[in-house]
Amino acid sequence: MLQKPDTDGLVIVTEEICQKVIDRDLAFAAVRDVFGAMARGDAYNFPVIREAIGHEDALYGFKSGFDKAGMVLGVKAGGYWPNNMAKGIINHQSTVFLFDPDTGKLKALVGGNYLTAIRTAASSAVSIDQLARKDAKVLGMVGAGHQSTFQLRAAVEQRDFEKVVCWNPHPDMIPNLGKVAAEIGIPFEAVSREELGAQSDVIITITSAFEPLIEAGYIKPGTHLACMGTDTKGKQEVAAELVAKATLFTDEVAQSTTIGETQHAIASGAITQDDVTPIGKVINGDHPGRTSDDEITLFDGTGVGLQDLAVAAVAAEQAVATGAATRVSL
Amino acid sequence: MLQKPDTDGLVIVTEEICQKVIDRDLAFAAVRDVFGAMARGDAYNFPVIREAIGHEDALYGFKSGFDKAGMVLGVKAGGYWPNNMAKGIINHQSTVFLFDPDTGKLKALVGGNYLTAIRTAASSAVSIDQLARKDAKVLGMVGAGHQSTFQLRAAVEQRDFEKVVCWNPHPDMIPNLGKVAAEIGIPFEAVSREELGAQSDVIITITSAFEPLIEAGYIKPGTHLACMGTDTKGKQEVAAELVAKATLFTDEVAQSTTIGETQHAIASGAITQDDVTPIGKVINGDHPGRTSDDEITLFDGTGVGLQDLAVAAVAAEQAVATGAATRVSL
Repeated sequence: MLQKPDTDGLVIVTEEICQKVIDRDLAFAAVRDVFGAMARGDAYNFPVIREAIGHEDALYGFKSGFDKAGMVLGVKAGGYWPNNMAKGIINHQSTVFLFDPDTGKLKALVGGNYLTAIRTAASSAVSIDQLARKDAKVLGMVGAGHQSTFQLRAAVEQRDFEKVVCWNPHPDMIPNLGKVAAEIGIPFEAVSREELGAQSDVIITITSAFEPLIEAGYIKPGTHLACMGTDTKGKQEVAAELVAKATLFTDEVAQSTTIGETQHAIASGAITQDDVTPIGKVINGDHPGRTSDDEITLFDGTGVGLQDLAVAAVAAEQAVATGAATRVSL
Repeated sequence: MLQKPDTDGLVIVTEEICQKVIDRDLAFAAVRDVFGAMARGDAYNFPVIREAIGHEDALYGFKSGFDKAGMVLGVKAGGYWPNNMAKGIINHQSTVFLFDPDTGKLKALVGGNYLTAIRTAASSAVSIDQLARKDAKVLGMVGAGHQSTFQLRAAVEQRDFEKVVCWNPHPDMIPNLGKVAAEIGIPFEAVSREELGAQSDVIITITSAFEPLIEAGYIKPGTHLACMGTDTKGKQEVAAELVAKATLFTDEVAQSTTIGETQHAIASGAITQDDVTPIGKVINGDHPGRTSDDEITLFDGTGVGLQDLAVAAVAAEQAVATGAATRVSL
C-alpha cells in the first residue's frame, strides 16, 4: 500500500516531519499571503464549528476554508481535551486535511499541533512587521505559557529588539520563557504590568484571560500590541478603553468583533465594525497601516482556519519535495 | 512508518476494504442503533457546513457529530464535484475521519463513498423494517440512478416482496435497476407513476427532483413511503398534500423540516414540526409507529453525519479485526 513519493495517493505529514520542513520564514510567508488573499476576497473561511461534546470536558470542532488564489481547500479538525496532560498527551489535538479543489479528493493529512503554534506566532509576527515602529527596541510579553515561546522567537526576528520584558498571571512560569530568551541571546526581565507598559514598544498578549490585564494608562504612545489570546466570547486581555483608543487591525473582522479582543469595545458601543481593518489590506497596500510614531496600533489575532490550511499546504509541499512525506493509496 | 495491525497509530480503511468488510446487515444495525441513540439524546449531530466554493461548481462541506453511547466522534468531509465524471472520477467524494473521544486523537480515516451509499440504503431499510405493513408485496422504486441500486438491495431484505415496479424521470436508466432486480431474482416492471402508486405497498423515492413526482391521489391506503432524495431547500419528491396526509417520521426533525421532504408542508402551514417523529423513538419503543393497516407512513431520510460515522466506525473495527486495515503512525 505504500507508494513512492512521486506517485499518486494521500500524502501523510506527521508532527515530526512538520517540525523538520516548516520553519518560521515559511510560516510567516504563508500566513502573510493568505491574509492578503482574504482581504482581496480570494480566500474565505467557512463557518466555524465548535462544540462542547459533553465528555472529558472536551471542546471539539472544525475550522475550514478555501483559498482560491493559493488553491488550498481543507479543514483543521480537533480541539481541546483538558484531561490529556494527566495521560501524558498534549491537551490540544489537531489535524489538517487538505483536498484537491479540482476534484474534491483527499490530498494530504498533516499533523496540526506544531503548525497551530507556529501559524499563531507567524500571525503576530506579520502584524509587527506591518505595524510596529521601525525603531522598536523593547518587546513586552504578557503570558509565559507554551505558545508564548513560539511568539517570542517569531517576534524578535521582526525588529532589532534589545530587551524582552515579561509579566504572567502565574509568575512561576516566567523562567520558562526566560530560558528561550537566553537561547536567543536577548536580555530578559520579569516586570510588573505597569512597568511592562511603560517600557515596551511592542506588546504581545498570549494568555487565556477573561479580564483586562493591560490598562490604557499603562502603555506609551507609539506602541504596537498584538493580542493573541482572545478567541471566545467573554475572553479579554486588554482594557476596552485601550482598544477604543488604538488603530485596530485583525485577521478576520467578523471573528474579531464577536469572539476576539474587540468584542468588548464593540459591545459597549465605543467602536463599530468599521473601525477594524483586515491586516490583509495593509499587506496588499490598500491601507497605510501605522501613519505616525505616536499612534497606538493593535492587531487582534483571533486565528482563522485559512492560516492552518496555508501552513499545512506548505508543509505538504515541502515534505513531498524533500522526500519526507509518506504516501498511502486510498 | 507502517506498523503491525495490533499496535497504535492511525487506522486507514480504503474504499476497497470498506466494500469487503461492511455488508448490508452491519450497516443496517449501525444506522438503526444510532437513530435510537439520537432519539434518546445520547448522540447528536453538529451543525452542517455546506459551501459552494466558487470553483468547479463544487459543493463542499462537513457533517459531524458525537455518539456518546457508541463512543464515536468524527466528521465526514467532502462534497460534490459535478465535472469529475468527465475526468473519470466519481462526482461525490467523501472521507470519514474518526477521533478518540477520550483524547481527541485522530483514530481512523475511512473512505466515505461506498459507505455513503450503503448508509443511505440502510436508512430507508430501517424505515421499512419499522413502519411498512408486514404483508407488503410490491416495492415501488421512484428513481433508477446509482444510489437506487443500493436502496433496492437493502429494501427487498425487509419484507417478502414479490415484485418491483419502477418509474424514473429518465426512462433510459430504468434497465440498470432492472438488471439488479434480475440479479436478486425478483420480477421487475417499468410502469407509469400512477400505476406505481396503485400497485406499491412500499415506495422509495431516490431522485434529485425539485417538484413533486408522486401525488397524494396516486397511492393506496397502507402504503409506506421512504423519501430519500430531498436534502436541500427547494428539492421535493412527493406532493405536500401527501406529506400532510401521512404519519411522518424522519432521521432528524430539524433537518427534515428545513431541507428535507417535509419542508414544503411546513412552509404551507399544513403541518408543524410536532407532526414529525424521530424514527429512533419507534426503534426505542417510545412511539408505536404504524397503528393501522390503512395508515400511510412516510419516512423522510435527510441523511445525517452520525449515520456516516456509525458505519465508518464499524468499518474501522471490522478492518482491524480482520487484519485488512493499514496503520500509519502520526
